[in-house]
Amino acid sequence: MTSDASLIQVPPGLKGVSVTDTAIGDVRGEEGFYHYRQYSAVELARHRSFEDVWFLFVEGHLPSPDERKAFVGEVAPLRAVPTAVEPALVAIAAGGAQGPLDGLRSALSVVAAAHKMRPVLDIDAAERRADALALAAVTPTLAAALYRLQQGRDPIEPRADLGTAANLLWMIGVEPTRDAARALEQYLVATIDHGFNASTFTARVIASTGADVGACVVGAVGALSGPLHGGAPSRALDLLDEIGTAERIDEVIGAKLAANERIMGFGHAVYQGLDPRSTLLHEVAVRQGGPRVALAEQVERRTIELLAERHPERNLQANVEFYAGVVMDACGMPSTMFTPAFATSRIVGWGAHIVEQAADTHILRPSARYTGPEAPAPVPSP
Amino acid sequence: MTSDASLIQVPPGLKGVSVTDTAIGDVRGEEGFYHYRQYSAVELARHRSFEDVWFLFVEGHLPSPDERKAFVGEVAPLRAVPTAVEPALVAIAAGGAQGPLDGLRSALSVVAAAHKMRPVLDIDAAERRADALALAAVTPTLAAALYRLQQGRDPIEPRADLGTAANLLWMIGVEPTRDAARALEQYLVATIDHGFNASTFTARVIASTGADVGACVVGAVGALSGPLHGGAPSRALDLLDEIGTAERIDEVIGAKLAANERIMGFGHAVYQGLDPRSTLLHEVAVRQGGPRVALAEQVERRTIELLAERHPERNLQANVEFYAGVVMDACGMPSTMFTPAFATSRIVGWGAHIVEQAADTHILRPSARYTGPEAPAPVPSP
Repeated sequence: MTSDASLIQVPPGLKGVSVTDTAIGDVRGEEGFYHYRQYSAVELARHRSFEDVWFLFVEGHLPSPDERKAFVGEVAPLRAVPTAVEPALVAIAAGGAQGPLDGLRSALSVVAAAHKMRPVLDIDAAERRADALALAAVTPTLAAALYRLQQGRDPIEPRADLGTAANLLWMIGVEPTRDAARALEQYLVATIDHGFNASTFTARVIASTGADVGACVVGAVGALSGPLHGGAPSRALDLLDEIGTAERIDEVIGAKLAANERIMGFGHAVYQGLDPRSTLLHEVAVRQGGPRVALAEQVERRTIELLAERHPERNLQANVEFYAGVVMDACGMPSTMFTPAFATSRIVGWGAHIVEQAADTHILRPSARYTGPEAPAPVPSP
Repeated sequence: MTSDASLIQVPPGLKGVSVTDTAIGDVRGEEGFYHYRQYSAVELARHRSFEDVWFLFVEGHLPSPDERKAFVGEVAPLRAVPTAVEPALVAIAAGGAQGPLDGLRSALSVVAAAHKMRPVLDIDAAERRADALALAAVTPTLAAALYRLQQGRDPIEPRADLGTAANLLWMIGVEPTRDAARALEQYLVATIDHGFNASTFTARVIASTGADVGACVVGAVGALSGPLHGGAPSRALDLLDEIGTAERIDEVIGAKLAANERIMGFGHAVYQGLDPRSTLLHEVAVRQGGPRVALAEQVERRTIELLAERHPERNLQANVEFYAGVVMDACGMPSTMFTPAFATSRIVGWGAHIVEQAADTHILRPSARYTGPEAPAPVPSP
């Protein structure tokens, strides 16, 4: 075994390691606070539309009324699937895409190629912005179209009179009531960005090679599909289904704790206590109401108690996933669309990170400590 | 502006930062040496077949004759494009894929979906191995098929009697002579792995989320498409074409140096002096012979002199890209296939890294220093 003494050792998983500077936002884990630019993300979700916050990520400031109108007008036509991509979309849906994200990954890759996106290294900031906007705008359309194609139904075209959240419901085939669209919109705003999570970091590593925006986004969708990252909102809902009624909470959660199973929807690597996204989505869910929301509140309360008994040294609380599934379910969203909906918001964050990274000149190329047999050993003859 | 004093500051681009342990291989920049497991990569390229070294990456040791036979037999049928993917492949080729890698990125994404690849978090080592093998085996077939479809020609099926290198030439429509196939094979062996380069790191970041092997590989292809990473072998050949004859070397290179342009094919971030891959590929090119190789040798010699005059403090030498283009060109490979050919070998390395990373429990999730306006600022009304 050889080892290189000049290597810089850091905590596993790069935890707490600052890989670059960013002006996009930050997460303050100890405070239970995160922000987009200088604004609290939760306050933005309470008071602003998805398009306003999307503009904030793209332009660095909230829009004036005129800017809002121009931005909405710019985004609307970008929602349509390019004609050249339609046959590929049908083939992707038929070719075995099983969801929730592998079809979207393929479809975004094809759309980026159809746009003939060029390496970020070879283009200016305006072209990077345009590429990021095009892929973010088309993502809900692609996700909804794949969902419907796989059910043997025709895709539904986006409407210019609806915002991103209402359009997503509409294109799935769900009536976008004012209340449902606003609840989904608040979820989407709250999940646009969250520090250097693995998908955002993936997008930035790829951008650092000078690759095109499509390559960055497609890699990020792959990271988001990981169960440890974006794959869990439907699992938290599955837990509620498994519990069924309030009387069974202790039995189901207790059995999982006894078996040392992880309770989906509780605990977070960055937030030691309350996850501010959970607090917001709890509010949204209560406003939506219904029996499932009532059960979720009871499960949350009792699970925190049971977790505290078992892990008194940790302050385990509900995380973003716990109420995310509840809110989306109450909007009428099918559970296979939960993670694609997450991609719909997070891609706005990726776009800003790709544009920011593209202005940096350092390729992200770390090292590793070699721990195998000592080299070189002689190569034996075949 | 806020900043978190608890963040760990490291060099830009994570240079020299050890992100994990690995037993796959290492690069010793100061020594001009790199190895796969315990063997010199250059010695493996000199003495072993691509399939033998592929086996070394998968199994951790070189194959016995019986193991070789079994492995070749296992890989051969995996080269075929799954029937369910054929319509998507045609649609991808028609839908605007412009090469060299965006079509391959889309095609691999669709193949992974057709295989219904599951998250690495949810499967055992044997299934991870099988998924990695399937994608590596089909990559040259996909790349060659896209190349031919975009030229309006039918794809050519792989042959069970040919190895990876000969098959790649055959499927493009180039006669795989013994000499050409061996030259290409040596290039492929020499480029399977090279430390924690950006595409390998991308594959590992995605694997750390527990995502499926397809998600990891598709992200890695995106990183490889970056001009700062895998995008340059054809650019070095373009330089030779621009120079044309030995008399013009000083004029062309001199003008570029005077304009502070980068000379493609010279200098490397990790190797301060000789790039061992360049040394090997120079040998291979000389064996191939021909006027272009003779010109390349003259350009190499004179450019190093001119670079030394201009940058006496640096020891700039030809890198892997300089002779990679020359070797592949001499094999009859069209230049748009250079980077896909690179993907054909590097995906073997990615597979080993994905399998190794999947056994680790740490999600790769770094931090960044926030440098924007101080948060929270009050959110203005819309």
